[in-house]
Amino acid sequence: MRKIGIPEIEDIATGAALLGAGGGGDPYVGKLVAIGAVQECGPVTLLDPDEVPDDALVIPIAMMGAPTVLAEKAIGGTEYQKLYDMVSTFFGQKIYAFMPIEAGGVNSMLPIAAAARLGLPLVDVDGMGRAFPELQMVTFTIGGMKATPMALTDEKGNSCIFETITNKWTEELARAVTMSCGASVSVSLYPMSGKQMKEYGVRGIVTRSEKLGRAIRTVKDSGTRTPEEHFLEFAEGIRLFKGKISDVLRETRGGFNFGKVVLDGIGEYKGRNAYVEFQNENLTATVDGKILATTPDLICLVDTETFIPVTTDALKYGKRVMVVGLKCFHLWRTEAGLELVGPRYFGIDTDYIPLEERCKGGN
Amino acid sequence: MRKIGIPEIEDIATGAALLGAGGGGDPYVGKLVAIGAVQECGPVTLLDPDEVPDDALVIPIAMMGAPTVLAEKAIGGTEYQKLYDMVSTFFGQKIYAFMPIEAGGVNSMLPIAAAARLGLPLVDVDGMGRAFPELQMVTFTIGGMKATPMALTDEKGNSCIFETITNKWTEELARAVTMSCGASVSVSLYPMSGKQMKEYGVRGIVTRSEKLGRAIRTVKDSGTRTPEEHFLEFAEGIRLFKGKISDVLRETRGGFNFGKVVLDGIGEYKGRNAYVEFQNENLTATVDGKILATTPDLICLVDTETFIPVTTDALKYGKRVMVVGLKCFHLWRTEAGLELVGPRYFGIDTDYIPLEERCKGGN
Repeated sequence: MRKIGIPEIEDIATGAALLGAGGGGDPYVGKLVAIGAVQECGPVTLLDPDEVPDDALVIPIAMMGAPTVLAEKAIGGTEYQKLYDMVSTFFGQKIYAFMPIEAGGVNSMLPIAAAARLGLPLVDVDGMGRAFPELQMVTFTIGGMKATPMALTDEKGNSCIFETITNKWTEELARAVTMSCGASVSVSLYPMSGKQMKEYGVRGIVTRSEKLGRAIRTVKDSGTRTPEEHFLEFAEGIRLFKGKISDVLRETRGGFNFGKVVLDGIGEYKGRNAYVEFQNENLTATVDGKILATTPDLICLVDTETFIPVTTDALKYGKRVMVVGLKCFHLWRTEAGLELVGPRYFGIDTDYIPLEERCKGGN
Repeated sequence: MRKIGIPEIEDIATGAALLGAGGGGDPYVGKLVAIGAVQECGPVTLLDPDEVPDDALVIPIAMMGAPTVLAEKAIGGTEYQKLYDMVSTFFGQKIYAFMPIEAGGVNSMLPIAAAARLGLPLVDVDGMGRAFPELQMVTFTIGGMKATPMALTDEKGNSCIFETITNKWTEELARAVTMSCGASVSVSLYPMSGKQMKEYGVRGIVTRSEKLGRAIRTVKDSGTRTPEEHFLEFAEGIRLFKGKISDVLRETRGGFNFGKVVLDGIGEYKGRNAYVEFQNENLTATVDGKILATTPDLICLVDTETFIPVTTDALKYGKRVMVVGLKCFHLWRTEAGLELVGPRYFGIDTDYIPLEERCKGGN
């Protein structure tokens, strides 16, 4: 158990944006919401999963929708109480703690805001260890858990509770309502017991985000190594490419941000080229026509000087970025995991091969 | 209080299809569902509104979606129990009776099936006195009542409960989920007290449907008058046109059936022409370029020989039909009523003028 205040939030936002793998929304927007709540209501208690009783009710809090919309559409302050009331009434049980469902600039921050505003603790766990675009894409689905009852509310006061026969149906129905509400809403899904949370959750994700964020903030204090070496070491990342953005193709469709960013090599990559395709999150990294990494491994773009993560909504012509691959959570590499979030699910015609194997022999 | 069995259902289905004003779905499909339920579970008790206590909880049962889909997608038997449970749990109160929300081939029948299967009475009342395409288009909206909590379930077992800030928002969100569920779902909305039901409901609609249906069935027993005179008299209808269908234009869009039927005059209308435009229900009747009737008055097409109503999904080239206008329920002619269902709401650039005034001086 420890407290999370404004300095911690700053670092968590940066680190979570890196783990967002291009998605998860703008960490600046997310940070403002969390800091605002902590300034008004005080710091938040972060619990280790093992500090939560097995029979406690724990609920994730998140935004659903297109990250580009999040930056323009307000996040109110009353949604969390509404979600609490809906889920708590459904179960006839008090909610013990909130948790994030994914790591990302926005969805790592909103549960902190919710915890601050309602005076509840936050658990150091999530259901992805990164960000993914669809709601059934969580470790809890692999564990056979249901996304429903799922509570959804918009900033105007419209709300609904879903109960569905599969988590893919939850995604279908909630996505339709999200679109009708203006492509961005607040949700609580996968309500779970402390026991389930401990069994299938990605433990320590908030702390990992914070450490990554702190390391990025202090990346220049790298002693004898270059900042880049330092960054790759603490992030446990594999460098895939370095380049200048020469084109960005985008499309907002069905509540998602689809697109592709094209890179011209710089430095030791001069004369070579690469592109990264995304659906909210980065899905593939292709260098000189060869795929070097695919979902579910994390493909992250960071600024070549500051190592600050660059989310897909912040891609701009001329920006210099390094493409880095990070290993995904082990459950994603199982057959059940790859069925949910492997390349073929996203319509990419390649088998999943772990990042570190694809990159064997250099790149 | 009286019992409704199979003979009554046959007549109600025919009469309700007439009041459906082209919409409300195929009475044959609706009838099969109601008769099946009554054969299995016995006849249904029909209550006069005044027989319902003021504090009783009464809920309408209906299908939401495109009528053309209803004919192809199964209606299960478990949806009514599910809707009952959802609404009853929400209020923590038992449900006293079911009621229809609109008159129409399908939505007059499903509440009968629900009442039979759950052993609950049906109230002789609805919220339109006809059919309309959108869910906020009920007399209860004029009375300031909310459509929510609205329960929705599909035949697969997916469900949700909506709470919205306006009835137009209920329509938006429920329509989005309906589309995702395959354009046809079972719903309960406008849960109300006996008092509200008596104050704003269209009383006696089931009995009126039954009488109309019986009169159509026995239209040939017309004594000294022609069957057509007899039909127009008991339906209190104004004849607008008689013709052969020469074209039908259709489009299924956003969960609605849009279209237009073109007629070449026959008999005393020979050499003249007319068309009727619809969005699920008929919206306007135009004869020789002059509008003779618009929503919210009822524009009904019936077979020229049998006077059986022809719904918009049953329109076919070559069919001979009479176009008949019926006065709508008085509340629809108020300012609040016309704002909800007047011609301009449907994008038709004309003021509402009552049917009987438009037709003054003959047609």
